[in-house]
Amino acid sequence: MGGDHGPSVTLPACKAFLDSHAEAELLLVGSPGALAPATDWQRCTLITASQVVTMDDTVETALRRKRDSSMRVAIEQLKANEAGNVAADVCVSAGNTGALMAVSRYLLKTMDGIDRPAIAAFMPNMKDQYTCVLDLGANVDCTAEHLLQFAVMGGALVTATEGRAEPVVGLLNIGEEVIKGSEVIKRAGELLRTVASQGHLNYFGNVEGDDIFKGTADVVVCDGFVGNVALKSNEGVAKMMKAMIRQEFERSVFTKLAALLAMPVLRRFQSRVDPRRYNGAALLGLKGLVFKSHGGADAFSFGQALIRAHDAARNRLLDGVHDAIVDTMQALPPTGGESVPQAA
Amino acid sequence: MGGDHGPSVTLPACKAFLDSHAEAELLLVGSPGALAPATDWQRCTLITASQVVTMDDTVETALRRKRDSSMRVAIEQLKANEAGNVAADVCVSAGNTGALMAVSRYLLKTMDGIDRPAIAAFMPNMKDQYTCVLDLGANVDCTAEHLLQFAVMGGALVTATEGRAEPVVGLLNIGEEVIKGSEVIKRAGELLRTVASQGHLNYFGNVEGDDIFKGTADVVVCDGFVGNVALKSNEGVAKMMKAMIRQEFERSVFTKLAALLAMPVLRRFQSRVDPRRYNGAALLGLKGLVFKSHGGADAFSFGQALIRAHDAARNRLLDGVHDAIVDTMQALPPTGGESVPQAA
Repeated sequence: MGGDHGPSVTLPACKAFLDSHAEAELLLVGSPGALAPATDWQRCTLITASQVVTMDDTVETALRRKRDSSMRVAIEQLKANEAGNVAADVCVSAGNTGALMAVSRYLLKTMDGIDRPAIAAFMPNMKDQYTCVLDLGANVDCTAEHLLQFAVMGGALVTATEGRAEPVVGLLNIGEEVIKGSEVIKRAGELLRTVASQGHLNYFGNVEGDDIFKGTADVVVCDGFVGNVALKSNEGVAKMMKAMIRQEFERSVFTKLAALLAMPVLRRFQSRVDPRRYNGAALLGLKGLVFKSHGGADAFSFGQALIRAHDAARNRLLDGVHDAIVDTMQALPPTGGESVPQAA
Repeated sequence: MGGDHGPSVTLPACKAFLDSHAEAELLLVGSPGALAPATDWQRCTLITASQVVTMDDTVETALRRKRDSSMRVAIEQLKANEAGNVAADVCVSAGNTGALMAVSRYLLKTMDGIDRPAIAAFMPNMKDQYTCVLDLGANVDCTAEHLLQFAVMGGALVTATEGRAEPVVGLLNIGEEVIKGSEVIKRAGELLRTVASQGHLNYFGNVEGDDIFKGTADVVVCDGFVGNVALKSNEGVAKMMKAMIRQEFERSVFTKLAALLAMPVLRRFQSRVDPRRYNGAALLGLKGLVFKSHGGADAFSFGQALIRAHDAARNRLLDGVHDAIVDTMQALPPTGGESVPQAA
């Protein structure tokens, strides 16, 4: 039901996903009217919900006043029953991000060893791969321990959805030297070096903003404020540049002719930086897999989020995060990392 | 002497600047050998310095071991003598940013009413104007009062170099609502609203990362960590997109032909997003005007920094910052803003 376009986008994307993934099963959650077109679909179960969380609803409204929202009912499918079975392996929503995180956290709870769930998304880089960046807005203030946990969770995500073993982790900072940055960042660097020195993490060191797009690291770790500003300002630059290219090609009859001739080239470029291709952010650190599609996604883009979520579930991301956290904890003193000795 | 290319870039830029600014006078500071080509230039005084701060020098080296560096001698020209006269109105350097800020701060001192100097630069926006963003890296941790001071200084800079009276100020945040962001950001918002409600500042409210490029505000305020990450990641996106356009046009004989036909259009686009055009960051809040050119600047780009610095001095930016800070302080309680009542 979520996103700017609702079922007019999500349903066609679901149909295409089912057609291309013969082993997949979908549970569709929404109003009976919205789900009607899917009545006869194979490998598809309809679950009705009487309410919808809107993009403007507050977290409080989503949690307290809309207990039968499609969002909440969908997330409930991830909860294990008494026999330990779940109805669904992963939930995908294009709805209100704040509400999705709050309801997911309330219903699923945070995984052992994780203090704060984080939002992780992928950004394209010059190696024609994707850089995973987290947190992108769930946590405004973070401790060094939170950043370490983000590193571990981001690594597990990259392994599950990008198939990269031992992904390289970078700490987003304002310089390469270990003395750079705030006290939190410096201590996060110490923790990451400690864990890496014992072989539990593949730590690159500090990276800077442009390294996200150089592909210096597979995972770039930052607090949610910095990550959100970086994400949105990068979207802003990309939009501005695309708009300026268009404006220049529309300037006169001659430039329009040039545009016609350059069209195949421009299309290829457009496709390489098309944000629809890397849609699908992961809410990591919960006892259940939740993916968030961009609210403005079209059917193709929502389909990409479905595929990424499906990959994550099939490659057992939940186990991956759990195992990686347990493994990392071994490198830290039993106090839980609150008093790690300073690295030399 | 500074920057990646030294006098081979700075001298030609200075010559062109002198030729196009008939009322301007230059003091060139450097080694005698480097300055030799400028011996016969009109309206140009040569000042020799025996040392050079390199891009790799630490702040300590610049401050303590290189007391006769060209950087330090240049900044000394901004200090008033006993009669209150200065040798120079503004200093421009392409050298080591950290050293430039430290030496400027040490020699010039911070302006009354300013706790921390900040680095402000301009980024292009979709209105074909420039958005001033600060701080870009001088201050990793900021209080709400620092952010307020950045807002005031940025406004004065935009008025002096862009000619915009009452520039619109935005607070960089992760959402439009006043409840968004960290405690520091929320309190900065309160301070800005208090000052704006009394007519001392034109405050827009929160802006997000993409607003920098939409041109929503003339001045965007953030701490130096966030600003630096945003600046560098934006440079990273822009570089990646330009590289991808080039790659696509170089893919085959046909695409190369298309490139040839599209060349005039691509050149116009390239020029609109050319970072050389908006080179020249201001070190604000000091008792003297210091501008920083990008280290990798070519002669055209260094010339843009000279022009911006010249505009700032001619339009009395130093007085502008001073007057704006005094004016803003009137809106805050006499305690100096440390305990401003919460806005309703």
